[in-house]
Amino acid sequence: METTKYLLSEKEMPTSWYNILPDLPVPLPPPLHPGTGQPLGPADLAPLFPMALIMQEVSSEPFIEIPEEVQSIYHLWRPSPLYRARRLEKALDTPAKIYYKYEGVSPAGSHKPNTAVAQAYYNKKEGVKRLATETGAGQWGSALAMACMFFGLECKVYMVKVSYNQKPYRRILMETWGAKVVPSPSTDTNAGKTILNQDPDSPGSLGIAISEAVEDAAGREDTKYSLGSVLNHVLLHQTVIGLETKKQMEMAGDYPDIVVGCIGGGSNFAGLFLPYAGDKIKQGKKIRIIAVEPEACPTVTKGPYCYDFGDTVGLTPLLKMHTLGHTFVPPSIHAGGLRYHGMAPIVSHLGNLGIIEAVAVHQNAAFKAGIQFARNEGIIAAPEPTHAIKVVIDEAVRCKNEGVSRTILFNLSGHGHFDLTSYDDYLTGKLEDYEYPEALVKKALADLPKVA
Amino acid sequence: METTKYLLSEKEMPTSWYNILPDLPVPLPPPLHPGTGQPLGPADLAPLFPMALIMQEVSSEPFIEIPEEVQSIYHLWRPSPLYRARRLEKALDTPAKIYYKYEGVSPAGSHKPNTAVAQAYYNKKEGVKRLATETGAGQWGSALAMACMFFGLECKVYMVKVSYNQKPYRRILMETWGAKVVPSPSTDTNAGKTILNQDPDSPGSLGIAISEAVEDAAGREDTKYSLGSVLNHVLLHQTVIGLETKKQMEMAGDYPDIVVGCIGGGSNFAGLFLPYAGDKIKQGKKIRIIAVEPEACPTVTKGPYCYDFGDTVGLTPLLKMHTLGHTFVPPSIHAGGLRYHGMAPIVSHLGNLGIIEAVAVHQNAAFKAGIQFARNEGIIAAPEPTHAIKVVIDEAVRCKNEGVSRTILFNLSGHGHFDLTSYDDYLTGKLEDYEYPEALVKKALADLPKVA
Repeated sequence: METTKYLLSEKEMPTSWYNILPDLPVPLPPPLHPGTGQPLGPADLAPLFPMALIMQEVSSEPFIEIPEEVQSIYHLWRPSPLYRARRLEKALDTPAKIYYKYEGVSPAGSHKPNTAVAQAYYNKKEGVKRLATETGAGQWGSALAMACMFFGLECKVYMVKVSYNQKPYRRILMETWGAKVVPSPSTDTNAGKTILNQDPDSPGSLGIAISEAVEDAAGREDTKYSLGSVLNHVLLHQTVIGLETKKQMEMAGDYPDIVVGCIGGGSNFAGLFLPYAGDKIKQGKKIRIIAVEPEACPTVTKGPYCYDFGDTVGLTPLLKMHTLGHTFVPPSIHAGGLRYHGMAPIVSHLGNLGIIEAVAVHQNAAFKAGIQFARNEGIIAAPEPTHAIKVVIDEAVRCKNEGVSRTILFNLSGHGHFDLTSYDDYLTGKLEDYEYPEALVKKALADLPKVA
Repeated sequence: METTKYLLSEKEMPTSWYNILPDLPVPLPPPLHPGTGQPLGPADLAPLFPMALIMQEVSSEPFIEIPEEVQSIYHLWRPSPLYRARRLEKALDTPAKIYYKYEGVSPAGSHKPNTAVAQAYYNKKEGVKRLATETGAGQWGSALAMACMFFGLECKVYMVKVSYNQKPYRRILMETWGAKVVPSPSTDTNAGKTILNQDPDSPGSLGIAISEAVEDAAGREDTKYSLGSVLNHVLLHQTVIGLETKKQMEMAGDYPDIVVGCIGGGSNFAGLFLPYAGDKIKQGKKIRIIAVEPEACPTVTKGPYCYDFGDTVGLTPLLKMHTLGHTFVPPSIHAGGLRYHGMAPIVSHLGNLGIIEAVAVHQNAAFKAGIQFARNEGIIAAPEPTHAIKVVIDEAVRCKNEGVSRTILFNLSGHGHFDLTSYDDYLTGKLEDYEYPEALVKKALADLPKVA
């Protein structure tokens, strides 16, 4: 049995990110000011983000150079490997060729540092001393903690209290890299204090944690806010994944018929598929791009495409996106990174244009696929990308049934070393599947902001 | 700041292991039968090991071919990267050049699969259906679980009960790969039942777990026993680390003045240094090879070099090695992989010949170095290799003080993703240093077997 791993040298790593905005056949609807309903200007975002990132958010340049300092840190784990999953192919007895890009090789264990390092760099360059952010299970918080360490920035992470208490490993990871982590709601912000006054035992939520981080950043001259997904500049930084993959697929002498990834806010999958979406738009490539989301939080498959807030409390600009309503709280599936009410505007727009498609899967089916993958390829995937693996296996089996060989590519966005209790729950039959919470979504959609 | 990573292609991976036995200036003292005191023959070991491994244990061939099936699985993560630690060098303001070989890229997170895959292969080839082994914190058990999965072997792991209860992550990892894991002492063996009869709440020990695994293997026709360190064939399989490193150091245009690694049973460090020890013996290379052990279990720095049992209960052959006495139970330091009373015979012999040297360090100093490494290089090291990092930093600082540039190479044998609570203990000041337990060692040394 041949194992095939496609590696690029540091010199072959892309030196620019790919910006899909100028290649879109229809322009992306702009973010709106929640008060006026008017498109936002750069000044509106200046209290929260450095100007370089604000300009990337609306750039019309097709390629944006990756600063040398960022490239240098990327080199600690990039270029990341592309694998041909020959053992899985054999186990499935499929004529399909399955490739996966593995982002779990970063020290934080996921794709998140690709943007964390870039964001820390631009903030540092504009004199920012400190970044504030929120984190749920801790994937994003740990990536930003590491990035801030490299640039000598302070990092304050508001970590959802229930995760802070139940998942100490990622908190310790952040602290090992020097970040300050507090359970949210905290007494460090007015938002946190207000919640604690109402309910001293509040378990917290991502929405509350965002409110705390935004208040922290808005209230301090030396501090900006940092977000790990959804926004255009975040997806831009992640395109290093897809640009590397295209070179590696060339080494393999192959080109994908199907590209698969999981979506929560959209950044890991967009990082892989955006360069391929560009080929589809500009060169008319026949390629299926399949986004996989949880049945418990089926933003693209069930949510309307309209303007909504990015956070639960309603502090952010309005983004046009697929949404289940900003007050919707998704069920507690193990794939914490997929529990988000909205979806990146770029991903939503491409879905609306028919350039990408979406499917939803249950977590038991996802973990079953994750175990099958681990028992053939060795690598333990994080709960999020097991959703992608489920659809990859389905497509490979379909190839067998149809007697057709197709090339399937997916993003293995991170390892599951900090998520093993979820595998234990699956193996011991304790994992619950949540049906689409239609009534809750209906209620949340009634809270959608009115836009003229 | 330049990051430098030296990568080999799959084609450049060594296709043979290096066997130092024929290059030793003085032959290695043989293992002895505990009953007769006579050197062991192959037949004595046949109930526990397949013949291919028994022959490797005494081979006089300088290179032994790595079977293609083993190479193919190695390719899932090998060749592993060699890094130049430029950020750490800069932080230390040292003229020293620091390189590290990173074995944490394997799916099990350490160097252990290098031998686990080879052992599973040879057992499979000789018709064995099932392997039994012991594990403490779980590094070795998880590597063997993964290896057995690749070859369709059953895997039974006796895991020290206190670890089984306190460290569920590595147990789940083994189960995800399909192994059967029981807390030891168990009711599955007579050894386990005897202990449980005496003390139903026994927390277990590595010694007890070895007894259970050996009894399991000896009592079943379809089952052999597998050991993760100490023996010659285990060290042989690990030399793929050092052989790759030599090629990568050539890419860097460099050769080490100092090679550093941590030692518990000796296998990770021997894997790196044996090819360099060969250079030292055959070419007279001036190179310091420094083995680092814990002050709490200073086998080479404090233990006599004599014949002793490999396990606590006294079931194994007698090995000539540095030992603190087979009944010595080391204090509960976090580096579980370094808590062993003995030392690989090859490592002990080379120490006795003056080819390698040893130093002992405290765990607080080791974790301090590990944090310094993580905050510069990003990677969170397992507790075991933080011991090596401590000495690397000391040597780099000495270079600065002496105004001399030396090339320092060390083995970063695994990541610390499953050991983060130990970092937490260090960061919160809860980590205890244990002085050398002289009285306990003296007592254990009184139990040494008598050899004519």
